[in-house]
Amino acid sequence: MKTVAILIFPDFLMLDMSGPAETFTVANRFLPADAGYRLVLISATQTDIRASNGIRVLADTTIAEPAESYDLLLVVGGPGAYSGRPP
Amino acid sequence: MKTVAILIFPDFLMLDMSGPAETFTVANRFLPADAGYRLVLISATQTDIRASNGIRVLADTTIAEPAESYDLLLVVGGPGAYSGRPP
Repeated sequence: MKTVAILIFPDFLMLDMSGPAETFTVANRFLPADAGYRLVLISATQTDIRASNGIRVLADTTIAEPAESYDLLLVVGGPGAYSGRPP
Repeated sequence: MKTVAILIFPDFLMLDMSGPAETFTVANRFLPADAGYRLVLISATQTDIRASNGIRVLADTTIAEPAESYDLLLVVGGPGAYSGRPP
């Protein structure tokens, strides 16, 4: 089992999260359970976070919490990445 | 302003929601505010709802609440659509 973390922030582009998330989810259908991928959604701020399309998602944890170790970390893009302040 | 409602349910396919949502959001950039699209996310069950990729989203309302009138209603697909029971 490998862990894939996706880091999101306010005004993130939802497709940048859902596209890769779907890829790993579909891959899991074809892999033995112990060789599959576990997704962890990390928020740069609070766990209830709004994408640039207005839809809110609930992250599993925030960067303020002690991190476990991840096999892969994906950082999404989106309008919030250009706000001029750290997300 | 036109209202676009997206109906989701447990185990819905997140890309079925985020793809169309992004389309209308990008369209809004090129339209006058009063000619743009407003998205409303409706859940078939509770507002905190988990997609088939494991990510949870927060709906704006549920079908149990009195509905406003929408210009367009999109119903997503996903593994939850084949569960054999109404979502």
